Order: sequence, then structure tokens, then C-alpha cells
Amino acid sequence: MATHKLLLLPGDGIGPEVMREVEKIVGWFARNGVGFETEADLVGGAAYDAHGVSISEAAMARAQEADAVLFGAVGGPKWDGVPYAVRPEAGLLRLRKDLGLFANLRPAICYPALADASSLKREVVEGLDIMIVRELTGGVYFGEPKEIVTLEDGSQRAVDTQLYTTGEIERIARVAFDLAGKRRNKVSSAEKSNVMKTGVLWRQIVTRIHREEFPATQLEHVLADNCAMQLVRNPKQFDVIVTDNLFGDILSDIAAMLTGSLGMLPSASLGAVDPKTGSRKALYEPVHGSAPDIAGKGLANPIAMIGSFGMALRYSFGLIEAADMLDRAIANVLASGTRTRDIAAPGANAVGTQEIGDAIVKEL
Amino acid sequence: MATHKLLLLPGDGIGPEVMREVEKIVGWFARNGVGFETEADLVGGAAYDAHGVSISEAAMARAQEADAVLFGAVGGPKWDGVPYAVRPEAGLLRLRKDLGLFANLRPAICYPALADASSLKREVVEGLDIMIVRELTGGVYFGEPKEIVTLEDGSQRAVDTQLYTTGEIERIARVAFDLAGKRRNKVSSAEKSNVMKTGVLWRQIVTRIHREEFPATQLEHVLADNCAMQLVRNPKQFDVIVTDNLFGDILSDIAAMLTGSLGMLPSASLGAVDPKTGSRKALYEPVHGSAPDIAGKGLANPIAMIGSFGMALRYSFGLIEAADMLDRAIANVLASGTRTRDIAAPGANAVGTQEIGDAIVKEL
Ligand SMILES: CC(C)[C@H](C(=O)O)[C@@H](O)C(=O)O
Ligand SMILES: CC(C)[C@H](C(=O)O)[C@@H](O)C(=O)O
Repeated sequence: MATHKLLLLPGDGIGPEVMREVEKIVGWFARNGVGFETEADLVGGAAYDAHGVSISEAAMARAQEADAVLFGAVGGPKWDGVPYAVRPEAGLLRLRKDLGLFANLRPAICYPALADASSLKREVVEGLDIMIVRELTGGVYFGEPKEIVTLEDGSQRAVDTQLYTTGEIERIARVAFDLAGKRRNKVSSAEKSNVMKTGVLWRQIVTRIHREEFPATQLEHVLADNCAMQLVRNPKQFDVIVTDNLFGDILSDIAAMLTGSLGMLPSASLGAVDPKTGSRKALYEPVHGSAPDIAGKGLANPIAMIGSFGMALRYSFGLIEAADMLDRAIANVLASGTRTRDIAAPGANAVGTQEIGDAIVKEL
Repeated sequence: MATHKLLLLPGDGIGPEVMREVEKIVGWFARNGVGFETEADLVGGAAYDAHGVSISEAAMARAQEADAVLFGAVGGPKWDGVPYAVRPEAGLLRLRKDLGLFANLRPAICYPALADASSLKREVVEGLDIMIVRELTGGVYFGEPKEIVTLEDGSQRAVDTQLYTTGEIERIARVAFDLAGKRRNKVSSAEKSNVMKTGVLWRQIVTRIHREEFPATQLEHVLADNCAMQLVRNPKQFDVIVTDNLFGDILSDIAAMLTGSLGMLPSASLGAVDPKTGSRKALYEPVHGSAPDIAGKGLANPIAMIGSFGMALRYSFGLIEAADMLDRAIANVLASGTRTRDIAAPGANAVGTQEIGDAIVKEL
């Protein structure tokens, strides 16, 4: 029985309760021949409370060792006042950077059964299936200088630096074109090349990679503000959207919200493939946040977290059959009407976090 | 008869044809006792074609002299290949910067008669009335360094700099709180303080201005990605949103698109009030762009441009009665069903750009 090393980082808010449901699924697979070696550790506010940092060196070492990291969510009002360097989000940012997880895949899928939960008209979003490919280790998130300085007159000046290199843009472009080839073969590249030099370089390099390596794929360039508009106006025009770290943060949240299925959407953050082992570092997390308002109440929808584990089965472990099985189990549970509050049909009874996990295990 | 100095910069694409309709309105006011001294000049691609720059020094001098600038739109595929420094958008950016137009007011209003034109459900957007206050002369648009450098190995590195000072944030915060006081008295301040130092400073200063000067206004801080989500999920929760140049670019486009009335939305860009004269520099422009695909066909909706002139009447010339009159005339024309293609009721006959202008003059 092969074992796969999985690190669970539940984090804060609803993180721990949705992670508990993933553990049920992992347990089921273990009982049925797919072994996982799981460890768990703290991240975010929980790590800060225990260690005074948002991720400990020990947890970082475990993440480096793991075949895949499952990440819940971080943050909450409790830690609003903690120093910038150890705020909950810093743990996530360090994981992304130190593991080299440059490619963030965020599917936005509108499940037909849930189309009415969207604030958009059914016909605008029904059947929506977009993949946002967000660059995750560069741009304004990590560029230096990044500082606040106090000037002579006592006033302050804050600076962030948006920085991209040829190599960073090339590798994320390739991920996007590759994915498009397995989908509807269209890539929309979003930047602000009319205002930003990083956007100018981004457009140049994406254009070249397209011409040299993926000429059969349809490529369009779209300004990020217009892309946001078009996502609201007619999202089905898109297949794969490739964009930088900051625009990706915003555009992927818009795309997720369109679907009416925010509690359903998983994501994968992938590193480069190691030419020696053929494997890559990876972290899987739900698109939703820590939702402090409903934390601990057993109301959270665990499907995005469970789906993130499904993405790990597929992308990190090559267990395509197991991943398909899990996806089918999720779909069946949804179809049976067993749903949490956020996606329950009007008038239908909503169930809690645990019931969803149990129902999926039962389906398996 | 008082005269007011107006500079018309129609620009590219549909800019000239929607500006022509404004001239009709200006003409009507002139015949009825409100005199304007109008000049016109080139900007954007049109200026590039004539002078090799996106705005000439002569046009800049006229803009400095004017009481208000009316700006159409710039850009189009024709100028996609021109050098970065003289691309069409550079003319607009220079106007904003050199005139010190730091406060960009972008109302997003959903006209009940047009609610069905939105891609969002009627109940989500009907009656929507948000004001986005976007900082317009700072941030990543103007920060230095802003460059692409070629490294020793032939690869390139692009840099943009996001920069904000105490003073820049204070003055835009005041504009937002001031406006909120005349509305529903709520300000939502959007930034990425969990990732960006400029966001940290932004939040600090907005918090202080609120405490010291506008304690009676409701203030909430919202992360920009969440703000984008909430705009899609439930936009009516917002009154005034204050945010930086780049987030404002994206968030205001989302807000505009929600309304289903993109061709209807005006905007104002205002400078500081001169303590001596009590006046301020100002530029008024529609939220929509140059729409090269329909340019020259007489299909464009001129209402955003005419409404921008209405904002000039109100904010630059203090002609409140005239502004109200113009707003009423626009509303009456809309109510009568005289509409351009973009907002025509399903099955109804759409009219052209000129018919709308004529109909508004007739209503006046
Ligand atoms: C938590 C935060 C740092 C993070 C980001 O801005 O990247 C989040 O919004 C996300 O999209 O994963
Ligand atoms: C034309 C462009 C430079 C401009 C901007 O990015 O500010 C436009 O998108 C806007 O919002 O006015």
C-alpha cells in the first residue's frame, strides 16, 4: 500500500471544522486501500496564539517534506491588531513563497443545481466553467521595497513594489496554455498594460509564448478593469484567464462569487515540476475564507475543502479514479438535496457541516 | 451674462459623436441665458495622429485655463502599437496629474427603468445608488520607478511602484466622508492591508480622519478582493466606497457594469479647492470607453457624456437649477422610451446618438 504524505493545516475560523470532514474522507480511502500519512499543524492566528508567529519553523519543515499540503483558512477579527509581520495571512504567504507555489488554479464552476443561488441571472451563469490561473509568488505581494517610512515633517509614505521578470511570466503562461489545451483552448490574459510597465512586459511575454509554443490556442489580451466588467456582463465568454498575483486575487473572487457556489470551490497552488522526481510541491485550499461569523457553529459548507482534497488526489497523487469517485460522491449528495445553509434550495431544510461529510462518505 | 470656460476634448472612438450632442445642450443653455466660452482640442489617438503626442502643450495650457474640461474617451486598436510614452491613455493620465485631479467621483446608479438590462437579478440591483470615490493622482499609476530593464542574461524585469503619502490619503478620505454626509452617511474603505503596506497606511489614516473629523459617519474597512465580491453579491450594502487608484479603476468598473446602465454613467475628477478663488480644477468624463467597435455609426448612447456636462454644471459652476433641469430632461426622455440600442427595451425600436441629443434639447 503506497503512502502519500499529507500535511493538514486547518488554520482559523471555519478551517478546523471543514478540515475535520476531509479527515473522514481520508479515513475512508485508507480503509479502502489508498494510504495517507497525515500530519497536522497550526497556521495563521492559531499558530500566532501558540507560538507568536503565523507559521512555526517546524510546520514549515513539515510542509517542505509533504507531498501535498491541505490548507483551511486563516484570519479573523481576533488578530486584527497583531503586528504586520506575524498577521495570520503571513503564514499563507510564506508557504506560497517558500514552497515556490507560483501557479494558483482557481476553477469557477456554476453547478446547474445551484445556479439560482447566484446574484446573477440564471442564463448568465448556468453552466459557467472558467479556470483562473493566478501567478502566486510574484508581483506586488512580494516585491521590495515594501515599507512605511516616516518623513521629516512627521508624515508617512508607504511603498509597495510590483515586480515581474521574464521567467516568472513565461512559466505561468505555459501553465495557462497547457490547461487551456485540455479545455476549450482559449486563454484571456489580463493586465493593465495601458498604465503599468509590468503589464507591458506581461503582454509581450504571453504573446511570445503563445506564438512560439501554443499557436493553436486562441489568445486574447484584456485590460484587467475590462476583464472584471466582462466577468459580470458575460462570464461564459471566458475559458482560461491568466493574470498576475493582485489582479488574480480580485478577478478570481469575482468569478467565484458569480457561481453562487463560493462554499463549493476548491483551488490548487502548484510549484514547478522537479525534473528528477517528476513531482511538484502543492497546496490545496478552498476559495472561501475563514468566515469568523459562522465559525464553530457547524454551519460551514465543507465541500470546497473536500474538493480541494479531490484536487490533491488528481494533481499531486495521480489518483484520477479516486478523484473522479470523490467528485461523483459530492455531486450525488448535492443532487439528493443534502445541502448546507448557503446552498439550500429556498424552503428546504439545511444540514450541518458534519452531515455533509458523513453523506459523502456514505456515497463513497 | 456670466461666461464659463469649457474645454471640450472629444478624443477617439465614440468620443466625438457623443461630444457633439453635448454641444447641442451647451447651445441650448447659451440661448437661454447661461453662457459658455467653449474651446475644443485633441487628445489621445487623435492628438497622436496630429502631433505625435497624446496631448499637445497647447491643449494642456487650455486645460489649465479652463473652468472645466469635458473629456470624451481615448484609445482604440489603431494605436495599439504606438510607443508607451505617447499612447492615447497618456494624454488622460497627464491631464489628471498636471491638473491635480485627485478625487474621481464615479456614481453607479441603477435606473429602475433599466434594471432589466443588468446581468444581475433585478432585486439585487434595482434602486442601486453607490458613489465610488477613487484616488486619481497617486498609487501605482504614477509611482517611480516604473520601468522595464534588460538584465545581463537578456531577460527582462519590469517594475511599477505603488506609493501613497499621509497627505494624499487624508484629502481623498475627506472627500469621501463629505459626500457620505450628503447621502446615507456610510463609507466603506477598500484596500489590501493584509498584503500591502500602502493598504496598512491607507487604513490607519482613514481611521484617524474618521475619528477626528467625521465621527458621526459609519466607517467600515473592507479588503479589496472582498469588496469586489460583495459588489457582485449584494451591492446595495454600500453607500460611498473610497479606494486607491488601481482598486478604484476595477471596483468602479464592476459597480458600473452592475447597473446595466454603462452608457448612462458620468464621472467627475476634481482638484483641490483653491483657498483664494474658492474654485477647483475639474474634468468630467463618461465611465464608458471609446468603444471602437461602434464608433462613427451613430449608435453610441450620449447620455453618460451629457450627464458629465450635468455634473460640471453642478460641481464646477454651481448651476444647481440648470443641472436639475438637465437631469429631469434626461429622465423624461428615458421614460418616454426614446433609447439607444444598449438600453432599449426588448422588442422596442432603438434610436441613434443624435436623436437622443435632440430629444433632450426638446425636453429642455
Ligand atoms: C489571505 C490573503 C493573503 C489571500 C491573498 O490576498 O492572496 C487571499 O485573499 C487569497 O486570495 O488567497
Ligand atoms: C484609460 C485608462 C488609463 C483609465 C484608467 O486606468 O484609469 C480608465 O480605465 C479609467 O478608468 O478611467
